[in-house]
Amino acid sequence: MFVNKMPRYEILSEEAMATLDGGWRRLMTEIGVEFMDDRALDLFRQAGQRVEEHKVFLDPDFVLEQVAKAPREFDVQARNPERSVHIGGDHMAFGAVYGPPFTREGEVRRDATMEDFRNFTKLAQTYDALDSAGGVINEPNDTPLDSRHLDMVYALATLTDKLFMGNVVSGVNARDTIEMASILFGAGQGREHGRASIEATPATISLINCNSPLRWDDRMLEAQFEYSAANQAVVLTPFILMGAMSPVTIPAALVQQITEALSGIALSQLIRPGSPVVFGSFLSNIDMQSGSPTFGTPESGIGLLCTGQIARHFGLPFRTGGGLTSSQVTDAQAGYEALMTLLPTFLAGTNWVMHSAGWLEGGLVAGYEKFIMDVQLVEMLQHEFTPLEIDEASMAFDAHEEVGHGGHFLGAMHTMERFRTCFYRPFLSSSENYERWMRNGGQDTAARAGKIWRDKLEAYEPPPLDEAIRAELEEYVVRRRAELGD
Amino acid sequence: MFVNKMPRYEILSEEAMATLDGGWRRLMTEIGVEFMDDRALDLFRQAGQRVEEHKVFLDPDFVLEQVAKAPREFDVQARNPERSVHIGGDHMAFGAVYGPPFTREGEVRRDATMEDFRNFTKLAQTYDALDSAGGVINEPNDTPLDSRHLDMVYALATLTDKLFMGNVVSGVNARDTIEMASILFGAGQGREHGRASIEATPATISLINCNSPLRWDDRMLEAQFEYSAANQAVVLTPFILMGAMSPVTIPAALVQQITEALSGIALSQLIRPGSPVVFGSFLSNIDMQSGSPTFGTPESGIGLLCTGQIARHFGLPFRTGGGLTSSQVTDAQAGYEALMTLLPTFLAGTNWVMHSAGWLEGGLVAGYEKFIMDVQLVEMLQHEFTPLEIDEASMAFDAHEEVGHGGHFLGAMHTMERFRTCFYRPFLSSSENYERWMRNGGQDTAARAGKIWRDKLEAYEPPPLDEAIRAELEEYVVRRRAELGD
Repeated sequence: MFVNKMPRYEILSEEAMATLDGGWRRLMTEIGVEFMDDRALDLFRQAGQRVEEHKVFLDPDFVLEQVAKAPREFDVQARNPERSVHIGGDHMAFGAVYGPPFTREGEVRRDATMEDFRNFTKLAQTYDALDSAGGVINEPNDTPLDSRHLDMVYALATLTDKLFMGNVVSGVNARDTIEMASILFGAGQGREHGRASIEATPATISLINCNSPLRWDDRMLEAQFEYSAANQAVVLTPFILMGAMSPVTIPAALVQQITEALSGIALSQLIRPGSPVVFGSFLSNIDMQSGSPTFGTPESGIGLLCTGQIARHFGLPFRTGGGLTSSQVTDAQAGYEALMTLLPTFLAGTNWVMHSAGWLEGGLVAGYEKFIMDVQLVEMLQHEFTPLEIDEASMAFDAHEEVGHGGHFLGAMHTMERFRTCFYRPFLSSSENYERWMRNGGQDTAARAGKIWRDKLEAYEPPPLDEAIRAELEEYVVRRRAELGD
Repeated sequence: MFVNKMPRYEILSEEAMATLDGGWRRLMTEIGVEFMDDRALDLFRQAGQRVEEHKVFLDPDFVLEQVAKAPREFDVQARNPERSVHIGGDHMAFGAVYGPPFTREGEVRRDATMEDFRNFTKLAQTYDALDSAGGVINEPNDTPLDSRHLDMVYALATLTDKLFMGNVVSGVNARDTIEMASILFGAGQGREHGRASIEATPATISLINCNSPLRWDDRMLEAQFEYSAANQAVVLTPFILMGAMSPVTIPAALVQQITEALSGIALSQLIRPGSPVVFGSFLSNIDMQSGSPTFGTPESGIGLLCTGQIARHFGLPFRTGGGLTSSQVTDAQAGYEALMTLLPTFLAGTNWVMHSAGWLEGGLVAGYEKFIMDVQLVEMLQHEFTPLEIDEASMAFDAHEEVGHGGHFLGAMHTMERFRTCFYRPFLSSSENYERWMRNGGQDTAARAGKIWRDKLEAYEPPPLDEAIRAELEEYVVRRRAELGD
């Protein structure tokens, strides 16, 4: 996996950080955070926090004590051990887009299907730049609502050998995810063995969103209880579009984000001390004229950089970023907005990057062409954020002696020895001259990406999986689907 | 103009810098630099440097002594004093694309014309994000070769009131540029007065390219002699596509770039000590399979970040960056490659940014739609690289008291007071929802940009200019065109 050894780009002064620290302490103490789950309220009450109806007024120092119990870094295992990831430190792990109800395929925009879900899962499997297909890559609208989590987890477990995200629609769905992961990690020794394995080292990482401002809703909390109790990683994520779910000022959004994320993390530590958590951030802004969400904005870039610094301040791994855009299609705006988010993601050194590939139209659409473009952007940035080796040999003095003034280095020995690997080779970008490009059809980037994903799907080969495990997973899905009444 | 008060992103360790320092010292001393101009050779010889044919073997300490004579920062005046710029420090100045022989307008790619030149000049005038239309915005192929510099300078002098770049095709062209600038800055007191004014504070900044590796050609040197003698700013720019004009390793390219830039800067200081210079960089790489130039690459991004740090190491203002791309059209690749160059440009704090708007197809094409896209990118980054104000009021505690848990901030007092100015408002990006976007024609970014530049040209109004000065400029152009034999 990718380890980002380049420097972090930090823009908050010590003074600014102290002001933000004052802000979240006050917000947490005086306004408090709502938890729409009695078990959560009981845990906080038992721990000595003031609870009024659903509001918990948190003591900031108590919260920091809980935060200190969380691991600074942790592993998440994949069924192929070579694909396991480390979350935290300089490590960056990348997952595909999460959540869109629609799909775009070239000029066609339509409801997302289970076949799209499987296709994106296969594409995520084929690119090494991605560590995970994610979780809800899209909403498979052609499958029954109550049991589609089973189909999704089954696809993620069988079509990839990378780690996957758990379902969070309810506590029931979370339990099913954990059961299926236990089967998958049974390694021929049964589900109990699998359960022990994933409890020792988490096999899932799941997205718990805050209903910002300052409210954690019941179904997400149910899922959090299941995952944290089973020592599965959770990403506690304030969901903030500034101007709507937070005040319009970035510092206010940061203060709210800290309050929300730390309150959720404190709960996980009350559920199970030491359980793995990620400081989550989904932070952008709305267009103040139309109210539309906007992505890849200057404000979201600033927020992202600050978030990384803040998470390090609290000693927590963090999630931000991705290839976000408001654009409806894979056009110039999609290109620059995706990079406007992804490049700061690398500058901040984000540990868990959701929405790395495929996000279109403010997250309403999973786009095939966009997926391909984004994978290349991740690859490019992984190359760019790999430190240079600067030594005598790298300065190529001999090549200058060989080539001389005004000459060219194309055939120099130094070049011949390195030309295959010296530069990143894009699979999507074109640098063809105009005449050749026209002869090849004069296709723009989106059109070229359309061919690439179709070829990739054609060439897809499933990773090996023990037939007994597959059968047990299938059996589980069939049984549970019946129980859930579909 | 834009002042970048955000931190610089620096990736070279002290040790790495010391290794590079050893590298350029050796290259300069042992391989030397070719100057294809006898006056340059004489100056170096007189200064005690070893000269063999056209090769000058430079003493690195002698070179550093010359470099120390150059101003760390300087002003370049525009005829509208409010548009004058400061080059160096935290200041960033932006000019349009420079040099393309072709134009793209939507689906049409054709030879560039003088009308295109005037159109791009007008567009550059209308956007505050740009400090200059640049110089050779494109090659006006429909005008006679020997006198087109007169037409270009005339357009730049009359259609904008921003600073412009001088012509560098020959010493003759440079002299014409200086004469026309002297007329323009005469301020009703004649050309002599103008000449004194621009010699006190330069009114032009001109691009002197190295014929990399390690050769300065005669015509560019002729122009450099004219400009530096007249105290006009010159940008000494190694022109390096790694793998062709330099070895394939980035450290080697950096060492060569230092050698070339410093040798050119030393010459300017021999011509006129204290004359304004800029450490130039045009650094990308070729595709090692096709030999095509590529832009917006990870390697060029790394090179750009290193270049900023290196220029600061030598106490020199520097030029890098722009909205570079290899893409043939204003598509997704054009979007991400342009930003892949522009964002590092801001991280590095580049003082003089050429090619900020309009560059397409590896610099062969000036694109109208790309111009519009790039201007918005520059604006976005100018917003992103403006430090946050973090104080009590910015944390909006009152807004939380007003809105409460799970509410929204759209109508909060804190929002109402700030909603017009709180976020950058893009003029090109769309965040329309799908239905509205389709009703409005379902246009992609390039199509929307097509409408914007046409509207902007329609609305263009020339900046005021003294009629006597305009007449004198016209007279100069007519007379010189006749003398040059067209």
